[in-house]
Amino acid sequence: MWEHIETLAGFGWNIRRKCISCCEPWKGKTWFNRWQAHFRTAAIQTLRRRTGAVPLEQIVCTEDYQEVVSMDRKRIRDLCVESLQDLMVGTSPKHIANGKGFYEYSFGNFPELRVYFKGAEHYTVEDVKKSQRFEDKGQRALLACHLVANIYDNDDVFRGYIRETINRHRQYKMDPALWEGFWTVWTGYMASAGCLTDEQRAAWMQLGKDFNAECQVHLKNLNLPFVQNN
Amino acid sequence: MWEHIETLAGFGWNIRRKCISCCEPWKGKTWFNRWQAHFRTAAIQTLRRRTGAVPLEQIVCTEDYQEVVSMDRKRIRDLCVESLQDLMVGTSPKHIANGKGFYEYSFGNFPELRVYFKGAEHYTVEDVKKSQRFEDKGQRALLACHLVANIYDNDDVFRGYIRETINRHRQYKMDPALWEGFWTVWTGYMASAGCLTDEQRAAWMQLGKDFNAECQVHLKNLNLPFVQNN
Repeated sequence: MWEHIETLAGFGWNIRRKCISCCEPWKGKTWFNRWQAHFRTAAIQTLRRRTGAVPLEQIVCTEDYQEVVSMDRKRIRDLCVESLQDLMVGTSPKHIANGKGFYEYSFGNFPELRVYFKGAEHYTVEDVKKSQRFEDKGQRALLACHLVANIYDNDDVFRGYIRETINRHRQYKMDPALWEGFWTVWTGYMASAGCLTDEQRAAWMQLGKDFNAECQVHLKNLNLPFVQNN
Repeated sequence: MWEHIETLAGFGWNIRRKCISCCEPWKGKTWFNRWQAHFRTAAIQTLRRRTGAVPLEQIVCTEDYQEVVSMDRKRIRDLCVESLQDLMVGTSPKHIANGKGFYEYSFGNFPELRVYFKGAEHYTVEDVKKSQRFEDKGQRALLACHLVANIYDNDDVFRGYIRETINRHRQYKMDPALWEGFWTVWTGYMASAGCLTDEQRAAWMQLGKDFNAECQVHLKNLNLPFVQNN
């Protein structure tokens, strides 16, 4: 097993080279392919554009190892926190709309998720707009995203918060795949709400990956349905 | 109205001089006396010991102004986070004991608070030790303290989290004075659990003051009993 990490000074990214045949975290092609689909393309493109530091030929893939580009945890935290500046929690009409807007976006673009909101299974976007319930829920969801962004570089606290979130949602009997899927909806909302850069999106998707990983571990420990990670 | 701020470079403290006859935040003697009782003595003593930068004669009190020593928000955050290093959340026996220990301390030293734990009104410390309920609650309380420490330098998120905490506790009909009193119990537990320095205690008490201030504002907005701040 071997690993090599180079840091691109001043940018906060690492280039990790890892043997994938024996390293647990990157075990198997499946995991890598999924990761690649969600994150790698955008991340590498942004990285190349911003720094000129990753020539195409360095991005290799052989039977022996994969080259993985990842951001420092602190850098991801800062990007996510920064991306939320115009989506702050609070008590003013703008702040309340920041949270409710997430559910308007979700109901408009992912109507199949309405099944998890008892009594609102047939709500339209207009119904959500008028709803006190989704005003409150919106503020809670927005706060949760602010919290995970702010604490992402404190791994134990991040994971503790995730376990507590799972505990609180136990009663809703959610499809365990939604803990990963959420981040597609979330970044979609952020993009629709204004400017989410490629780099910020990549940061959120990496945070979401780590979030989901702890979710599945905790669901398994609770003897609840979970998604097997490769 | 005038204000002067000097920063003690490399230490993270500010010395603020403010006119108290016209400045809202320091309005009146009552507020200042309460602040002084909770924070000033320890803070100034620590500051003098650590830096030698605050000669006694600078600490003045006239009719026109008070000299107030306060820490930078980021410095308070870092001190609180640092003080929790040996009280991490998690799933190991040590981590679980870190949380449950808070309730053992609380039931042992503040038995009058047991009334808020339905069914456990007559619990001894030994009962708490054996209790799954307080294992779970302990982890939640500990996580909450980690969260507020980590997000303290992001004021909007800090205040959003406080409002959400109040919303979740509404059902327990707590005495509103407990939102300030909690921090005496909390820092007492931390001190009993190991080493809480004077400086870390001062940081937690300042965080607790700000926490309580937002609690009382939110309780008032919810038309619930609240403590009038001076």
